[in-house]
Formats: sequence, C-alpha cells, structure tokens
Amino acid sequence: VTDIQKGERNIELAPGGEFDIIRRLFDRWGPRVRGAGDDAAMLDVPPNTTLVASTDSAVDRIHFRRDWITAEEIGYRVTTAALSDLAAMAADPLGMLIAIAAPSAYLPELDALAVGIGRAVEIAGTHIVGGDLSSAGELVIGVTVLGSAPRPIRRDGARVGDALYVTGTLGGPSAATRAWYAGDEPRAEWRDRYVRPVARLREARWLAERGASAMIDISDGLLADAAHLARASGVALHVRLDAIPAAGGVRAEDAASGGDEYELLLSAPATIATDEFASRFGVPLTRIGSVERGPAEVMATIGGERVAPRPGFSHFS
Amino acid sequence: VTDIQKGERNIELAPGGEFDIIRRLFDRWGPRVRGAGDDAAMLDVPPNTTLVASTDSAVDRIHFRRDWITAEEIGYRVTTAALSDLAAMAADPLGMLIAIAAPSAYLPELDALAVGIGRAVEIAGTHIVGGDLSSAGELVIGVTVLGSAPRPIRRDGARVGDALYVTGTLGGPSAATRAWYAGDEPRAEWRDRYVRPVARLREARWLAERGASAMIDISDGLLADAAHLARASGVALHVRLDAIPAAGGVRAEDAASGGDEYELLLSAPATIATDEFASRFGVPLTRIGSVERGPAEVMATIGGERVAPRPGFSHFS
Repeated sequence: VTDIQKGERNIELAPGGEFDIIRRLFDRWGPRVRGAGDDAAMLDVPPNTTLVASTDSAVDRIHFRRDWITAEEIGYRVTTAALSDLAAMAADPLGMLIAIAAPSAYLPELDALAVGIGRAVEIAGTHIVGGDLSSAGELVIGVTVLGSAPRPIRRDGARVGDALYVTGTLGGPSAATRAWYAGDEPRAEWRDRYVRPVARLREARWLAERGASAMIDISDGLLADAAHLARASGVALHVRLDAIPAAGGVRAEDAASGGDEYELLLSAPATIATDEFASRFGVPLTRIGSVERGPAEVMATIGGERVAPRPGFSHFS
Repeated sequence: VTDIQKGERNIELAPGGEFDIIRRLFDRWGPRVRGAGDDAAMLDVPPNTTLVASTDSAVDRIHFRRDWITAEEIGYRVTTAALSDLAAMAADPLGMLIAIAAPSAYLPELDALAVGIGRAVEIAGTHIVGGDLSSAGELVIGVTVLGSAPRPIRRDGARVGDALYVTGTLGGPSAATRAWYAGDEPRAEWRDRYVRPVARLREARWLAERGASAMIDISDGLLADAAHLARASGVALHVRLDAIPAAGGVRAEDAASGGDEYELLLSAPATIATDEFASRFGVPLTRIGSVERGPAEVMATIGGERVAPRPGFSHFS
C-alpha cells in the first residue's frame, strides 16, 4: 500500500457549484487538507492504540452568535471545541471531517470561517481529511474528530481517594456571554477566553502518563460536567469552589457553573506535580477537591460550607 | 485493557433536558448503541487495515421532504446513505456517530426517526457509538460512519482496459422525486427504491476481492459520479446508456442522470462473474461500459451514437 493509497493525496474534484466552493475551502486550508475528495477518508491508526472518535454540531444562534464574534472566530472556536473531546480522552488527533450546512447568503463568509477552522487544525497539528457541504436554511457546522490513544481516559474511572484537578482559569467565556446578553461589550480578557480556547491535547497526554483516572472537558460548565463524571464513576465528588481559579472579576460560583469552557476536569492521585505542569504548559493545574465515598453526585463547598450548585446549559430544557 | 475500557458499556447519563431525550433515543436503539456517553467513542481498528471515515449531513427540505416520506423512512434513508460511502470504499463498518439538530416542534417525531436509523444500523450489522443532540431552527441529521478495510477501493484507480459495472436497477428514486414534485404519488416500485435503499457493503467487499480497481457510489447520479471517477483516475469512461438496467417505466437517460441512488459504479477486469454476483446477492451487476484512453471525462452513447449527458444535482449552483 503506497502513501497515495493511504490518502496522502487529495482527489481532484469535478467542476460545478458545490465543488467550486469546496475547492475554495481547500485553497484556504492549503496543506492542512490531506487525502480528501474520495467517498471516505483513509487513515492509519497506530498499532496498539484505540481509535477515539467524536462529533459535535454547532448551530447559529444556539452555539454562537454572528453579532458577537467574527466568522473566523466561529470557525476556530467550533473546531477547538470538537478537538477538546479528544483531549478529554487523552487522545492524539488523527484527522477531522468538517460538515458545513449554510444558507447561500452565508457563502461570502465561508472563507473567513475556513481560516478559523484551519488555524485550530494547525494548532492541534492535525489535518482535514474529509467533510460535507450542503445548502441549508441556517448555518450548522458539524465537526468530527478522529484520534488515537494507547490508553484513553474515560469519565468513569474516578477512584475514592483521588484528588480532583482542573486546568486553566475559569469563568471568562460565561462572563463574556453574560455581558453580550446584557448588551455590553465584555472585558477583553473574557472575550479572549471565549474566542480563543485551546484544546488541552498535550496537557491531557501528560496527565494520562501521570495516572489520571477519569477526565472530562467542562464544556457544560465545571459543576455540570463534574456531575457527569460522578455519575459515570459512581463516586461522590467534593468540589471546593473557593479553590477554583477564576478569571479576573468573576466570582468562583459563576466560574464553576459557567459553560463554553474547554478546560479539563480530572481525577488523579494527589501526587501530580502542578508546578511542573504550569511551567511546562503555561497554564495552571489546580487541585480543587477530592473523590469520596458517597452518593454519585457533586458536593460543592465554600469555606467548608455546603452550597447548592446551579446547573449548566441544557438543550430542550 | 478490558472490554469495558474498550467501550462495550454505555456511560450512565445525568438527568436533564437533552439527556432525557438522548436516553429515549438509546431506549429506541437498544443493543445497537454501544460504548456511548463519554466525551468520545472508543473503537478497535483491526490490525493491517486502514481506517475509513466519512460524514454526511441531511437537511430538511434539501435532502428529504417530510411531506413525502415518514420520519422513520427519513432516518433509515439518511443512515443508509452514509453507510453507502463505506461500501464505496469496500470497508467494513466499525461504528456510527449520529448528530441530530432539531427544532423543539420536531421532538415528538424523534422516536420514529430513531427507529429508522436503528434499522439501517442493524441491517449493516454495526453500532451507534456516539453522537450529538442540539436544538436548531430546522432539522439537520449528521451521520458519521467509521469503517476499516484491508485495501480500500478509491475512485482514482480505474485503468484503461477495465470494464465498467453498476450494481442494482437505477432510476427509481429520481422517478419518485419527479412524481412528488409534480404533485403525484410515485409508483410503489419507485417509492420503495427511494425509501429503502441498501448500502452495498457485502457486495463491495466481494467486488474488491475480485479486482475492482476504482469504485464510487452514485448518490449524485450515475453520469455525475462517473465524471468524478473519470477525473480522479485520469481516464475516459465510455458509458452505454442502453445497457443500464432501469426501473420499470424509467427511460435509460433518466436512470443515468437521476441521483438519490446508492448503488455502486466500479471499474474492474472484464472477467467478473456477474451471474454469481446476482445469485449471491439478489441484485444485478451489469456491465455498462469500459475504461478507455482519452480525456478524463464521460462519453455516453445510445446504440453507439454519442449523446450529451445531463448533470446531476449540485448544491449552490
């Protein structure tokens, strides 16, 4: 099997409406597109690894607002959100499939959207290997990520006695969206955290190698995703809200409940070298609680006092 | 690594709006859901095979019409269309990711949609391993298929001297849509071909083992997809329209240009045992032309006379 058969080369596209647009996207993506254009993409999965795959859809006015951020920022953010699911499994990206359904009126903005998608793909060191383009009444971006891991980290492996950690500084994205909803411009720091999240891919592999027992990204908000992890693992999670590193001007409770965040929540032995993590990745790793025996739910405290957590975002509720 | 870590077991979901709906879908799918509920799905790819992956979006009123067919038929058809891309590569399915973006008003029909999806997954002998559910202004169904093949069949491998073959009987789906557009009820045979396509997965593997050199599914219509194959392979394709097996009451030219078809077009040595194929799979395999030296395009003839082919459907044209 040659490299060409393994999908290194893109297939030449026929002329015509949608193919001209796909060609324009390919031009935008340049060397970040690889092996696309056949009925399906072909990829080698490294031996002794597990394939890890996830799909995310982002819908106009549900997952992003075009009056808040640019098309380039939308493309970057949606792609990074999908890559974050690979990070949550401690997987290496193998490639991405990008499905775009767009109204004709949106076509002039597709170039900028593609630039943002391409930037996220480049930062993750991966490639676009296929996708789909369709007309639609509203903009829907579907991103499928494919990766591999020698030992994927699930959300059901937390063990009593583990410590709970979170990466990064929380609350910026939700503070930004609160400001936008109120008709204000958010602080630059909050806006930046909203439009420029980073999928914690390298960080996750480092954490997996050091014994992370369960991991999840906190796209629904730390407390909501902690509840998923507690339920899946069948353990109680004690989260000390006053330990959570919050963005400037954000209360710890808001940082803990706000979504649109692509940091990692994990359980691991209490011996993880958080200083080494911070100096290696330029991002804090903070111990925020512990895994305990008890009902499979989250107990949130401030100053040792139990508080009632607020739920994160949920569709159709 | 245990079976559980490999994703045999579904993760327990937390309560709440979208999770209640996902649970309802899981109930509908029963044992056809496997290993879902984590940040990403985990799958073993057999050694010495290539991972094959494709994503397809189907948009309400673009890819299907809810006044023409039922929600169950929509689910079945969209899922089979995606599986057909695996067939076109001669790949074995490993699993599927289902992304549904739906208006709240559509929620009562989700059960029927799920039944149709599940039926297509069952016929293909595969599983739903993950997905995404989102609210949206219109119904968009994104289906990602994952498969593996010892030797995927691309669309760029056609060689001068090969024969051209097509599976099945063509033209039913496009005749059905023409009838619907004209406000008529289509013949039962045409409607049936539209709502009950079959992904030619077993057929494709049989053909790959017998030397298929290039293959494509003809979802854009035989002539449009033949043009893709000609262009990718850099060869001329001679298609004898009068050799095409057409559905009852459908002219050969219409069968050759009509889309919404999930049969396979392939190039292979002229020695393929078409009778054996037909008796094994209950579907005809018909020799309809040849691969020739010349410009990378399709030459269509009827009774030896060249005719101008009509293009298939194209988005944004």
